[in-house]
Amino acid sequence: MTELLTPPSRGFAASEFAQRTEKLQQQMSLQQIDVVFFTTEPEFRYFSGFKSQFWQSPTRPWFLVIPAQGKPIAVVPQIGVCGFAQTWIEDVRSWPSPRPEDDGISLLTMTLAQLSKTSRRIGAMLGPETYLRMPAANYKTLQDNLAGHQMLDISNIVRNLRSVKSAAEVEKIRFACEVTAAGFDYLRANLKAGITEREACKAMQLEMLRLGADSCPYLISASGRGGYDDIIMGPSDRRLTEGDVLIIDTGANFDGYFSDFDRNFAFGEVDSATHAAYQAVYASTEAGLQVAAPGRSTGEVWQAMWSVLEGAGALGNDVGRMGHGLGMQLTEWPSNIEGGDVILQPGMILTLEPGMTFSPGKMMVHEENILITSNGCEMLHKRAMPSMPVITQ
Amino acid sequence: MTELLTPPSRGFAASEFAQRTEKLQQQMSLQQIDVVFFTTEPEFRYFSGFKSQFWQSPTRPWFLVIPAQGKPIAVVPQIGVCGFAQTWIEDVRSWPSPRPEDDGISLLTMTLAQLSKTSRRIGAMLGPETYLRMPAANYKTLQDNLAGHQMLDISNIVRNLRSVKSAAEVEKIRFACEVTAAGFDYLRANLKAGITEREACKAMQLEMLRLGADSCPYLISASGRGGYDDIIMGPSDRRLTEGDVLIIDTGANFDGYFSDFDRNFAFGEVDSATHAAYQAVYASTEAGLQVAAPGRSTGEVWQAMWSVLEGAGALGNDVGRMGHGLGMQLTEWPSNIEGGDVILQPGMILTLEPGMTFSPGKMMVHEENILITSNGCEMLHKRAMPSMPVITQ
Repeated sequence: MTELLTPPSRGFAASEFAQRTEKLQQQMSLQQIDVVFFTTEPEFRYFSGFKSQFWQSPTRPWFLVIPAQGKPIAVVPQIGVCGFAQTWIEDVRSWPSPRPEDDGISLLTMTLAQLSKTSRRIGAMLGPETYLRMPAANYKTLQDNLAGHQMLDISNIVRNLRSVKSAAEVEKIRFACEVTAAGFDYLRANLKAGITEREACKAMQLEMLRLGADSCPYLISASGRGGYDDIIMGPSDRRLTEGDVLIIDTGANFDGYFSDFDRNFAFGEVDSATHAAYQAVYASTEAGLQVAAPGRSTGEVWQAMWSVLEGAGALGNDVGRMGHGLGMQLTEWPSNIEGGDVILQPGMILTLEPGMTFSPGKMMVHEENILITSNGCEMLHKRAMPSMPVITQ
Repeated sequence: MTELLTPPSRGFAASEFAQRTEKLQQQMSLQQIDVVFFTTEPEFRYFSGFKSQFWQSPTRPWFLVIPAQGKPIAVVPQIGVCGFAQTWIEDVRSWPSPRPEDDGISLLTMTLAQLSKTSRRIGAMLGPETYLRMPAANYKTLQDNLAGHQMLDISNIVRNLRSVKSAAEVEKIRFACEVTAAGFDYLRANLKAGITEREACKAMQLEMLRLGADSCPYLISASGRGGYDDIIMGPSDRRLTEGDVLIIDTGANFDGYFSDFDRNFAFGEVDSATHAAYQAVYASTEAGLQVAAPGRSTGEVWQAMWSVLEGAGALGNDVGRMGHGLGMQLTEWPSNIEGGDVILQPGMILTLEPGMTFSPGKMMVHEENILITSNGCEMLHKRAMPSMPVITQ
């Protein structure tokens, strides 16, 4: 058994939440926004430090309100009040929830109205890759209640802030990545023809949990003779046999932070075209690693990776991008996409995820997790093997 | 080690999706709704059978459109198309996502417009306990695109449909419950003073996964001398010692269906008031089990349980309800709430969750999972012990 890895400490210093909040407030000030509110778990946790698995229950809405100055204010169901003693939040306002006829909307209205008396401009997450975790009918009521106020999208501000990770955030993601890498080593040593995709995934899940992951909310697999045709569905009960290629893609979580990378395995002899596709995608990642550095754009990273795949005869890419941000969510802004104009900065964590259809119905996808450093990038875990590992048992 | 339990088969017959869809379409017809669309995972899966962990990625929106007649239509990112070969869906429309400037909205608009030419009434999930999993700005665009159409809340229709489980759904939930019960047995046999809450939860998580759970997305704990003051935060690194009470509350998942119940444990000698609170909450559950039957209301179940707690000197209940629906989500409609007027029907699965503050800062909460049968209810797993189990190691 692999030795247990040493996890970094949990949580964050209160000063980190204060810094995050101040940075947001600076942007609010520039845009003359009086107050903002959040409804979704990552943003709620990012600014408050409130961390609970209770978000699994969709019944009750939760709101975090951030004024122009000072600490955030929690506007939450009564069941949650006690949990804020563990956070830097002092002002906690609650209502007895569930109360479908007014699930916090009058309390949220009052709180926002009090704090938006200057510009009457209120910020919320309305843009790409976001949603409001509250009934759409309640958001309408809130807008009606606050007629005369303007609701502005602040998703671009928040995604910019969140995309640059602090040292403490990096260490949590690095640990999740190291656990995942060790999980893949364990898997490779224990894979053999005859087991099912589901059995392989379960074995790896148990090992990652044993090694220190809190959970593995994303653990998919796909397999087929010489290749696979999808990367988001499994695991299935398909039994792996000679000639198969298996991909497992997983996001392990430690203290609320994700890893997200994959590995491919060949079972015995597979087609030379499949090995060539693996090598092309490996080379594509190498090209991405060369380019990913402060000042370069996500479009440049995409171009460097795609050029290699195109040269290798790629028939297309259904994933729609070749990597993305990573952190409190399995996938975060930005995307490595054709023409992408997001400029990389030190502290950003990204996946490099080149993928291609190399033959009709057969894909090859690689994924690695990197940190943008002051002068380039570094891998957050052990690199994939340059040639596809072959399982011979 | 406990013998592995035998899981029920995975997935559902196509006829089950057809029946669910027809029942929805009957209600749509009664309300003269031409077409409905869904954005959230449980509803998408309920009507389509599309099951993927990829919903963990918040980047891309997914839409399921159900016309007045015929099969649902998937309007989804290209990366997901392949997965529909495993479902009963035939009409799959896709766009290359992520594409922030138009992430499926023009395609969704076109699809809805085509199918809403009669009443021009379009249904969506807008009401309590729901949200739209799409950017709020995109929902606004959709409404603008479909000016002249009316958007109606159908959350009451869908929650009614989903609250009555099919035999196949019941078997999945029963299995999740049995795994959870076996996990608690394992925990009890292995608990000892000196371990931390987190270690206890991890041990139970590994055992439930070994026994056949696919995942345990909810696994919390709380502990304290003679009681605990919260039930949604842990596990913490608090070390359990003589005089403590520990609660663990968990939702294990099998094939997309949840269990959700808890157990309490005393470490050595605890206060007689704590034991009395346990017995009161146990008796409260007994009262709930007597009342829960077809024709009775959620308010009657609440009243039966609360009367017992009140008689035992309860100081209050911050949870806001005493149980809820259960199935594809950890918590579903309806709530067992004061004055609740939802009438129980055979096939409903509920938690009975009496809880009270029995002394300032000390709560006692029990939870069991039941199925409403033709003439009463049945437990879906082994009942808690009538007296609090005491760990003496």
